[in-house]
Amino acid sequence: MSKNVNIVGAGLVGSLLSIYLAKRGYKINMYERRADMRTAKISAGKSINLALSDRGWRGLEGVGIADEVRKIAIPMYGRQIHNKDGSTVFQPYGKKDQAIYSVSRAEINMKLMDLAEKAGIKIHFNERCTHVDRRTMSAHFENEENKKTSNVTSDLLFGSDGAFSAARLNMQLTSDRFEYNQHYITAGYKELIIPPGPKGEFLLEKNALHIWPRGSFMMIALPNMDGNFTCTLFLPFEGEKSFDKLKTREEVKKFFDEEFSTAVPLMPTLLDDFFHNPTSSLVTVKCYPWTFDNKIALIGDAAHAIVPFFGQGMNCGFEDCVVLNELIDKHKEDWNRIFPEYQQLRKPDGDAIADLAVGNFVEMRDKTADPKFLLQKKIEARFNEKHPDKWVPLYTMVTYSPNIRYSTALKEGKRQQAIMDKVMALEGIDKKWDSEEVEKMILSEISK
Amino acid sequence: MSKNVNIVGAGLVGSLLSIYLAKRGYKINMYERRADMRTAKISAGKSINLALSDRGWRGLEGVGIADEVRKIAIPMYGRQIHNKDGSTVFQPYGKKDQAIYSVSRAEINMKLMDLAEKAGIKIHFNERCTHVDRRTMSAHFENEENKKTSNVTSDLLFGSDGAFSAARLNMQLTSDRFEYNQHYITAGYKELIIPPGPKGEFLLEKNALHIWPRGSFMMIALPNMDGNFTCTLFLPFEGEKSFDKLKTREEVKKFFDEEFSTAVPLMPTLLDDFFHNPTSSLVTVKCYPWTFDNKIALIGDAAHAIVPFFGQGMNCGFEDCVVLNELIDKHKEDWNRIFPEYQQLRKPDGDAIADLAVGNFVEMRDKTADPKFLLQKKIEARFNEKHPDKWVPLYTMVTYSPNIRYSTALKEGKRQQAIMDKVMALEGIDKKWDSEEVEKMILSEISK
Repeated sequence: MSKNVNIVGAGLVGSLLSIYLAKRGYKINMYERRADMRTAKISAGKSINLALSDRGWRGLEGVGIADEVRKIAIPMYGRQIHNKDGSTVFQPYGKKDQAIYSVSRAEINMKLMDLAEKAGIKIHFNERCTHVDRRTMSAHFENEENKKTSNVTSDLLFGSDGAFSAARLNMQLTSDRFEYNQHYITAGYKELIIPPGPKGEFLLEKNALHIWPRGSFMMIALPNMDGNFTCTLFLPFEGEKSFDKLKTREEVKKFFDEEFSTAVPLMPTLLDDFFHNPTSSLVTVKCYPWTFDNKIALIGDAAHAIVPFFGQGMNCGFEDCVVLNELIDKHKEDWNRIFPEYQQLRKPDGDAIADLAVGNFVEMRDKTADPKFLLQKKIEARFNEKHPDKWVPLYTMVTYSPNIRYSTALKEGKRQQAIMDKVMALEGIDKKWDSEEVEKMILSEISK
Repeated sequence: MSKNVNIVGAGLVGSLLSIYLAKRGYKINMYERRADMRTAKISAGKSINLALSDRGWRGLEGVGIADEVRKIAIPMYGRQIHNKDGSTVFQPYGKKDQAIYSVSRAEINMKLMDLAEKAGIKIHFNERCTHVDRRTMSAHFENEENKKTSNVTSDLLFGSDGAFSAARLNMQLTSDRFEYNQHYITAGYKELIIPPGPKGEFLLEKNALHIWPRGSFMMIALPNMDGNFTCTLFLPFEGEKSFDKLKTREEVKKFFDEEFSTAVPLMPTLLDDFFHNPTSSLVTVKCYPWTFDNKIALIGDAAHAIVPFFGQGMNCGFEDCVVLNELIDKHKEDWNRIFPEYQQLRKPDGDAIADLAVGNFVEMRDKTADPKFLLQKKIEARFNEKHPDKWVPLYTMVTYSPNIRYSTALKEGKRQQAIMDKVMALEGIDKKWDSEEVEKMILSEISK
């Protein structure tokens, strides 16, 4: 109970984890490389808005802070598709009240830091982790401001320091047989903005996630509390339509006029933002093990960085905290049992959501504009309505069903897709999609 | 021509590369982390013997040093299989005179260092690379003996510093979108020894690579010039038969008596060696890009570390040098063209031999003792004899055919295996393997 716990990284997952552990009486210090974002100026253009869904909410509810966070979250009930011809289509994300919630990464992080400090956790800012010595359980830090170095010893040490985790790098270099894979998709992203109207009003439907799907690329927009939409352009780095081909203001203007003509009038600072904001890359990191000597553990992006297209990065990290917390109960704080089960249980789920997230890029940028895909979703939704026990759509499993593991959702999703491939191949499916024949066919395929 | 070239790592590939470049008039300094192995004591038990084959010889011939190396190489004309019941079978590696050549890693490395120095290259020992600054093209070193640090600037910088390359690590940390994957197989290895007989004679057939295949594990032995055989036990780390289960002298003795009864009498220091020598892991590293700013390149294991089961690690690294040398000719020393083509050309071949090497572990430890596999090899050899233009066995493509790219060999090998799967499924194939029916069937399958 009196264990001395240090956490490297005071991001979303580190902060939530610290609250879970503090509630159990652990003494916790948290070390964060960046300055305190609550007092320092935040650098713009480097943070996709986040979409909180049920796994994330469960993580927040576990320590009683969901209501606090709900105040800064905007429900999005579906995708608003903006076609190239200017038409729009609304695709609900689930049943009537089911929504995902847009939150600003900075706002929720600041809120979690406040709550962590309220729970008695000390956060040390500007402390860059330079090295972890497993033998002595000492973590070394260098202060980014005054360059002073310090050593901290721990009974338990958590690395929640993100996709480029220093704690993990240390394990890569010092652990024999450490499996490690970092893979970048060919597209990058850039943040842009749709500001509020003259009266502060939202210029697009507030309660939707907006997508301009264009095949090999897309733009999306998520609402913020202040009337802004954070837009993100996802575009290949190289190729015919790519960041590589957008070097001048003329080229950017032409590209946006051609591809996103209905959005351009809403983006008065488009050209300045485009050249001011960085172009960032999108990485998937898989590694194993996640724990070392039953005293050090990786959690969140440090263990499983994923691309943002299923909106599950934060949700998955929060779920790590929930699972860890359940294991602490189960094993009565015996960390020699908790850590092995934690990594064994969570690794397949981390791998699964990583693969699902890459797959969802194709769905968002390409298929959401495909009438055949929309028909398929309609058939699935109808079947789910009639047989809710027999068919839960993949999106629903991932987003609204925290009791279904990601790895189960991935497996079940593949099985469903194989069935739907057969259904969609039926002659005249666009006419008879709602027929008894189709319903019976799905029932028979499921029972196989 | 007066370019200032620095090479990190004076191993096999770095040393050979330095000779290629010195012959063109480049000024070369080479930095090696370890002490000079020609004067310092070599640590035992950490180096599998190497098998030089045609790609490696071509690399040595390119700078006229093959004859020098031939003096320390022992030809092995095939595999000598030692079955559990004590029987042995000889499986030729190719046609009559085709052999792979056993060399000691240390001996060939020392020879290459001698030749490099003779070519005017300066080798700096005990210099550990700590950091590479791409912007200033400066490499930083710390001397392992006196801890003095130094900076070296380069026009061209090569990282030939092996599977755990410091140069590559630097690129992993500082290059956006650097693809990186390190993967360990579940088996590790340990070196053992079969010393010469009382008169210095070889106690096993000298001109063969010896294998004790045992399904999920194996031992191999390669001859050394002094009458020794270097034995290597490849065994899973965990599981029923594993290093994990060999903790006491009794356990080791029982395991060897059961599994390698005919070898045990030849291994008088077995138990001491087993507990003295380390158990090492086997890693595959894939990464990309291999070059940076057209000024820095990775080569050999630093670019593509592979497991040793196809005996191609050194050969592949030497082939890197050959390809690079050809590109220097082709592009008339324009490194802005040489480096992009080098990595584009070699990456698929590095990936291919990595996969082939993992696959060959299964073949060596398991299939070499399988009568069905031996029959298949016999059919392939016979068909190759009759139609040498239509069928070159995979082993021959990889080992004796430096004009066939690894990537081509991998593809062709898969095609051949699919054909042989059909052939081996023929009823009574063990009777009619040499028949016209089988020959015609293969001919027809090939022409598809």
